[in-house]
Amino acid sequence: MATIGILGGGQLARMLALAGAPLGHRFLVVDNAEDPCAAQVAPLLHADWRDRDALVEFARRIDVATFDFENVPAETAHWLTGHVAVFPNPEALATAQDRFLEKTLFTGAGIGTPAFATVDSLDDLRDACARIGLPAVLKTRRLGYDGKGQCVLREPADIERAWQRLGGVPLILEAFVPFDCEVSVIAVRSRSGEFRHYPLTRNWHRDGILSASLAPLEGFVELEQRAIAHARELAERLDYVGVFALELFVHGGQLLANEMAPRVHNSGHWTIEGTACSQFENHVRAVLGQPLGDTAARGHSVMLNWIGELPEAGPVLAEPGAHWHDYGKSPRAGRKVGHATLCADDPATLAAMLERVGRALGRAEQVAPVIAALG
Amino acid sequence: MATIGILGGGQLARMLALAGAPLGHRFLVVDNAEDPCAAQVAPLLHADWRDRDALVEFARRIDVATFDFENVPAETAHWLTGHVAVFPNPEALATAQDRFLEKTLFTGAGIGTPAFATVDSLDDLRDACARIGLPAVLKTRRLGYDGKGQCVLREPADIERAWQRLGGVPLILEAFVPFDCEVSVIAVRSRSGEFRHYPLTRNWHRDGILSASLAPLEGFVELEQRAIAHARELAERLDYVGVFALELFVHGGQLLANEMAPRVHNSGHWTIEGTACSQFENHVRAVLGQPLGDTAARGHSVMLNWIGELPEAGPVLAEPGAHWHDYGKSPRAGRKVGHATLCADDPATLAAMLERVGRALGRAEQVAPVIAALG
Repeated sequence: MATIGILGGGQLARMLALAGAPLGHRFLVVDNAEDPCAAQVAPLLHADWRDRDALVEFARRIDVATFDFENVPAETAHWLTGHVAVFPNPEALATAQDRFLEKTLFTGAGIGTPAFATVDSLDDLRDACARIGLPAVLKTRRLGYDGKGQCVLREPADIERAWQRLGGVPLILEAFVPFDCEVSVIAVRSRSGEFRHYPLTRNWHRDGILSASLAPLEGFVELEQRAIAHARELAERLDYVGVFALELFVHGGQLLANEMAPRVHNSGHWTIEGTACSQFENHVRAVLGQPLGDTAARGHSVMLNWIGELPEAGPVLAEPGAHWHDYGKSPRAGRKVGHATLCADDPATLAAMLERVGRALGRAEQVAPVIAALG
Repeated sequence: MATIGILGGGQLARMLALAGAPLGHRFLVVDNAEDPCAAQVAPLLHADWRDRDALVEFARRIDVATFDFENVPAETAHWLTGHVAVFPNPEALATAQDRFLEKTLFTGAGIGTPAFATVDSLDDLRDACARIGLPAVLKTRRLGYDGKGQCVLREPADIERAWQRLGGVPLILEAFVPFDCEVSVIAVRSRSGEFRHYPLTRNWHRDGILSASLAPLEGFVELEQRAIAHARELAERLDYVGVFALELFVHGGQLLANEMAPRVHNSGHWTIEGTACSQFENHVRAVLGQPLGDTAARGHSVMLNWIGELPEAGPVLAEPGAHWHDYGKSPRAGRKVGHATLCADDPATLAAMLERVGRALGRAEQVAPVIAALG
């Protein structure tokens, strides 16, 4: 039995605590939010991550620290290592927090990426656009998530507008990839160096936020092997411990790495019911140095994200093989408030279930691309 | 989202809270123990069940009350219905708390039982022994569990000794059944009257405490149908809401009802991983009037109980398909401190896994009868 401290008390911390409790572990969440949803299932230390006195108290009460949010300041994470074991290590966190360091890591590891260039001035941006071409995406190097801190440039007139909107912090310009689809690898590496991965997952976004995930994928055998080799290479280069997600674009048979999330990931929520050992349980096992659990898919799973507010639970609860997740958060535009996972033994049964659930909840648009992919 | 109050804060309350949290529900546990293990995952109201002021406060903070322990005084449960909805209803609880009322219910419903007679004096006991024959089992009518409050009478000389040990409270003498095996039905009935059952489970006890459970069972089709019909009949007679267990002896092709537990039950712990919707989630759904979830077995499952102290977790964690449960309790002789569930697609794979786990943990005796049953 160990006590695991989590920096951040959102739904990822909540699901980590729910997965670790059956194993006998205790949790302590540190967050400065008023009512962080993880505090409904685990004790809370109500404090800011920059409050060093609070973090000393936090470190004293736990055996190992981890994260529910990648934007915990890397220097805080580094300082914390003087007080308690911290996984993933702060260097991995710092790399994943900065889109330029991250893309540099990818290219150094021989992993394709969209063309990119750092942008620190309007002149930099003009040069980068000339070199990379339009359309392109201007992004803040740090603190972006769920499509925040991004701006698409389609024509030269957009350059100055984009600079007005995002300029003043370090930026990166990336080529816009007209991808065939988006996929992610959820993988885990333990303190002993053991590496495991879940099946490649296909993802659909709406308004920059994950809308649906599907796993496993049929007809992606060779791509999946390459994606997993990339994930393993990154984990080893970073001496990474814990679960992480590598998001990739598939474009004309090529894989282009988009970003790496140094934590359990929304596109791995389907593993709660779709595998014997979820990403949350495996993250707990990894940071404690326990043997990793089975990551093979049981049947076929789709995760549907609930953004802003929850739909009615009834139609999902009434469906055998469907699982409801309500994070206990209040509704707010753009906020992730819950998800549902639908599981079936075969793709046709899963497609029929998606069809029923989509119709009952008025979410036909959300399920349509997944049904098409299953067909 | 609802808040569910639980009288009792042991491992059953803990597993109820862990199953209900993903659905967005909150919990409040009332218990007077120093450190009840459910309080690690849900808020605690530290109070005695007889403290009416505390229970008024409890009722005010919850939407529905339920139990983790059947020996909450039925009059307390009845009084509580004046303040909040209580499921299962106190009459069902009162019946299940008293072995004589319970057996009378069974016989009234046409369900076979071992011969039984109430015993309130040494003369009663002598008469009952003459009528029922020896060996027989003398039990307290109330407050017995895990083999507590029981005494086996093998020869006439045992009669007075047994009376000395247990006399002074209402007793029941039951014929000793040299059963072929013990089975249980875990079933659930919702506020809307919907009834579902899990596959029949076979149980092995050691020293009066559940040691292992196996489900589903092969070659029990007709017996299973009868057992389930009995469970349904009882649920309807009691207007029962929630999960319950009906424990039966199998003896020469006959089913003899032993007892009914008005709560989630140790012999249903395998449903956490062995079905899509566990007994814990279905109890939560039932008391809230939500649609019940899928109770079909996924593959074959064995639950091994950890009594007194936990064995080493490593060999279980290293086994794909095996799941570790540590209730966060301190070790104590006879105390249920955790369990493991082993799942496989077929009985032979499950038997091989049991063999490995039993050997690695020095628990060959515990797994041997289950392996024999799988063979």
